[in-house]
Amino acid sequence: MLSSLALSLRLGVSAAGRRSIATVVSGSKTSRLVRDRLKQEVDQMKNLFSGFRPALVVLQVGDRDDSNLYISSKLKAAAEIGIDARHVRLPRSATQDEVLRSIMAVNEDSSVHGLIVQLPLDSAHPMDSELVTNAVSPEKDVDGLSCINAGKLSRGDLGSCFIPCTPNGCMELIRQTGVSVAGKHAVVIGRSKIVGAPMHDLLLWSHATVTTCHSKTPDLPQQVGRADILVVGAGRAEMVRGEWLKEGGVVIDCGINYVTDERRPSGKRVVGDVHYASANQRAGFITPVPGGVGPMTVAMLMENTVQSAQRFLLRDQART
Amino acid sequence: MLSSLALSLRLGVSAAGRRSIATVVSGSKTSRLVRDRLKQEVDQMKNLFSGFRPALVVLQVGDRDDSNLYISSKLKAAAEIGIDARHVRLPRSATQDEVLRSIMAVNEDSSVHGLIVQLPLDSAHPMDSELVTNAVSPEKDVDGLSCINAGKLSRGDLGSCFIPCTPNGCMELIRQTGVSVAGKHAVVIGRSKIVGAPMHDLLLWSHATVTTCHSKTPDLPQQVGRADILVVGAGRAEMVRGEWLKEGGVVIDCGINYVTDERRPSGKRVVGDVHYASANQRAGFITPVPGGVGPMTVAMLMENTVQSAQRFLLRDQART
Repeated sequence: MLSSLALSLRLGVSAAGRRSIATVVSGSKTSRLVRDRLKQEVDQMKNLFSGFRPALVVLQVGDRDDSNLYISSKLKAAAEIGIDARHVRLPRSATQDEVLRSIMAVNEDSSVHGLIVQLPLDSAHPMDSELVTNAVSPEKDVDGLSCINAGKLSRGDLGSCFIPCTPNGCMELIRQTGVSVAGKHAVVIGRSKIVGAPMHDLLLWSHATVTTCHSKTPDLPQQVGRADILVVGAGRAEMVRGEWLKEGGVVIDCGINYVTDERRPSGKRVVGDVHYASANQRAGFITPVPGGVGPMTVAMLMENTVQSAQRFLLRDQART
Repeated sequence: MLSSLALSLRLGVSAAGRRSIATVVSGSKTSRLVRDRLKQEVDQMKNLFSGFRPALVVLQVGDRDDSNLYISSKLKAAAEIGIDARHVRLPRSATQDEVLRSIMAVNEDSSVHGLIVQLPLDSAHPMDSELVTNAVSPEKDVDGLSCINAGKLSRGDLGSCFIPCTPNGCMELIRQTGVSVAGKHAVVIGRSKIVGAPMHDLLLWSHATVTTCHSKTPDLPQQVGRADILVVGAGRAEMVRGEWLKEGGVVIDCGINYVTDERRPSGKRVVGDVHYASANQRAGFITPVPGGVGPMTVAMLMENTVQSAQRFLLRDQART
């Protein structure tokens, strides 16, 4: 796959003076590759450790439609790979103490290697989602959202932490382009806990010079224009225009926005934070929406779960 | 003080075409202001809570000359302010377990509000300084170096964490200039746990657009040239040249480097990471070395200790 990407790049470069169209970096294909590799790793673990399976708990409070959809895609991916995924549902009437007790029970269950709390919490009671997120044991926090994992990532201790799934998926897509990150100028738009902030950390500790932009950045087009690698997690439909981009750069679009489209039976369609039609005239590589970053998020959750199971196995081995 | 700074700035601007000399941002003066304020706060606490005093433990392993010097300046500042500072010394023969046990004892001592472990650990035994740093209770980690505090800072939860002292001091110096950070382009050189990485976080969550540069940045002069606010924690003597700077910007120099100087009786002198003589011809504001960031570090340690004591008092009050 890499060689065909490299070839497209070379063709683009040779057509000097004429704008080439960006190489599409497919998250659907890349996530397939990741999931196939994980399936093999899980099979190996099963063979080596008599039937051992990585286990993941997805804890849900309430019954939001969007959460149900996300959880079902996680459970499906886990089943395919051979991960034992358990869906623990608490009713909307559950109190924060009940949620915390459920988390503690999973923390203490040595047969479980990963625990994620599906956000937002859909409860009739007030919930401190920071407190709930940080109740997950750092050793099982495969979403990588606890303070301890964030602290390690932000300070460059990547070997011993879990990396949040969406930015981890973005890095995998950047690797697929064959463009090396070290020494490049990377620009991240957004500073959220799940996308922008950890993305900054990953690019920085891959030795890029990193600029973080956000809603208070007055000269966004100029900042974007300097990006060899651009990752957008702004949450605003088609905000980044093609004409802002540095020619030939890598553009990773984390946006998932629904816009009105009368031509569709549903009356809407999904677009990213990047204006794709103009951006793919200027970028060297670009991720589509849908089919770009989205599928990678679930794949990287599976990756973290398998990694966690491997760490637990290694610790057990070290003890015996 | 601010009005005279503002006046200097205006004079600089009016002398169009001619280079003005930067306003010196004095850490010696600013740290004096901080320590005077803290002394008043401690006096108030004593009056309100019958003799209550914030207490700080400085844990030292071994007997390094530089550590002895740093610790003595911390103890002196604490005594002036009215903080009860206790110096706990362990011999070079102390094992990691003994160090950890000492930390646990201080964690459990409710009369202590702040605990710092003087680094580097000077022990005859192997020491995992990450493990030791993270053994300090996050509620007493007034150096702000534990993963939990780093995680909160990096993700924007500044209200509930301790901010590392050197970058916190830099922010105080930036405030002294009267230049507002929000919407500015800030550049940080360095990504260390104690300076660069937390400095990035503080500037970002003060709503600057932040670029982090480091040893792998290929175009450092160009990056520096875009900085409205530049903070340098590179550890390389006089690396940043005046001609790189954006005219009128704020330059904060965290460097402490010793260079040979035959004219001095000691044969050496201390310089920053910025070439001061050329930089003060171009910057709007600049910190000197010595007398800039250095004195702020100790002042902000005192600030964190007083803040911690206040938090403990508030928690005690809430319980009664």
